[in-house]
Amino acid sequence: MNLLLLAADELLPDGTARVQGRRARHVAEVLRAGPGDTLRAGVLGGRLGTARLLALESDGAVLEVTLTEPPPPRPGVDLLLAMPRPKAVRRVLAAVASLGVDRLVLLNAARVEKSYFDSKVLAEARIHKHLLDGLEQAQDTVLPEVIVAERFRPFVEDALEGLVGPSQRRVLHPGPMEGSPPSAAERLVLAIGPEGGWVPFERELLAAHGFTPLGLGPRTLRTETVVPFALGWAAAR
Amino acid sequence: MNLLLLAADELLPDGTARVQGRRARHVAEVLRAGPGDTLRAGVLGGRLGTARLLALESDGAVLEVTLTEPPPPRPGVDLLLAMPRPKAVRRVLAAVASLGVDRLVLLNAARVEKSYFDSKVLAEARIHKHLLDGLEQAQDTVLPEVIVAERFRPFVEDALEGLVGPSQRRVLHPGPMEGSPPSAAERLVLAIGPEGGWVPFERELLAAHGFTPLGLGPRTLRTETVVPFALGWAAAR
Repeated sequence: MNLLLLAADELLPDGTARVQGRRARHVAEVLRAGPGDTLRAGVLGGRLGTARLLALESDGAVLEVTLTEPPPPRPGVDLLLAMPRPKAVRRVLAAVASLGVDRLVLLNAARVEKSYFDSKVLAEARIHKHLLDGLEQAQDTVLPEVIVAERFRPFVEDALEGLVGPSQRRVLHPGPMEGSPPSAAERLVLAIGPEGGWVPFERELLAAHGFTPLGLGPRTLRTETVVPFALGWAAAR
Repeated sequence: MNLLLLAADELLPDGTARVQGRRARHVAEVLRAGPGDTLRAGVLGGRLGTARLLALESDGAVLEVTLTEPPPPRPGVDLLLAMPRPKAVRRVLAAVASLGVDRLVLLNAARVEKSYFDSKVLAEARIHKHLLDGLEQAQDTVLPEVIVAERFRPFVEDALEGLVGPSQRRVLHPGPMEGSPPSAAERLVLAIGPEGGWVPFERELLAAHGFTPLGLGPRTLRTETVVPFALGWAAAR
């Protein structure tokens, strides 16, 4: 936790905040902060700055919060990601939040196991928790929007356009490296398939919606590896 | 496991191989392969091709191996990585192998906890196992060389030059994105610090050995995220 992240309604009119539970324990036990110490802090969806610890009480920590900076710049990237196995979802959510992805669509595909959509890890509260982990890690305050799309075709045909708008769209596929990163001026939407790849129907439907192929090499990477790899590639634009 | 990886001495003169234990169970139980089925296979340090399952016996699987292709191209990247926390080492090793890194130096730094070097995860057999996981994932046969360097200064002053030779050298630091990926023609050595960053002495010693700063943005990323992110950035060169 590199950032003490506060909800907007935790910030009181006098500029103080009280945190309890996990965050209070982190302040006391991991950071070993004492009254007068200053921590990095931010408010969810808002600005970053510092929190001076005023008091550690049995039921929480009282902080004086001063917010001065905007959150870090964002790469302007949305991801359509074939639903990973549940074990990977937690790490992918945290990574996506830490990398500043704006929208993450967890999408069904022919080669995704149907049972993945029944996983408890997709409960709204669990998703939120893992996204917060990523924001606290990266010192960001802006939550990605996460959409779980259990039907591939209706999502691509009916929802995609309204969601991402005009954008450059690339679909990752295994094969030789090709193409340089697109201009940074426009939103980039990356479609990343399941480990077994997209099936022909999926590739064709993505192509019909403006996704051009992007070869990032012949290596089959795990979802939690390919996501930051693709964002790093995009960062070179 | 996207590749059945054989040790050179498992390949018999008649072109067959017998695997046992983990790999045999994977063939039988996960891939549910039967006699006649063909799997993707490779020999450690050598070529890739196919293995036709001849028989599943109680003590292993017998395969007919045909090796036809070279392993995938490599990005020409070495990593100096401040030793991650032990929990992350397993994933970092697998990721590094799957990404085709040639050498990984797990390096001490002022902001690395000393106890990390006592972790059982650094036992040679454990390292080897996690690297194999990465190769099987990426369908590669070439093991990265892993060096554990418990003393920062002697490594940089005495060992680095002989290890990596002439190369472009960049040290990641938090801050605005800057610089485009260097030419792909030359070996690239990336130095990635601990989450708390390199201390001034370390930055200065790296600078004295040819490492120029590389800003990949203000976000503090976990080691297992920043490694593929940096490789993706390098892949755009």
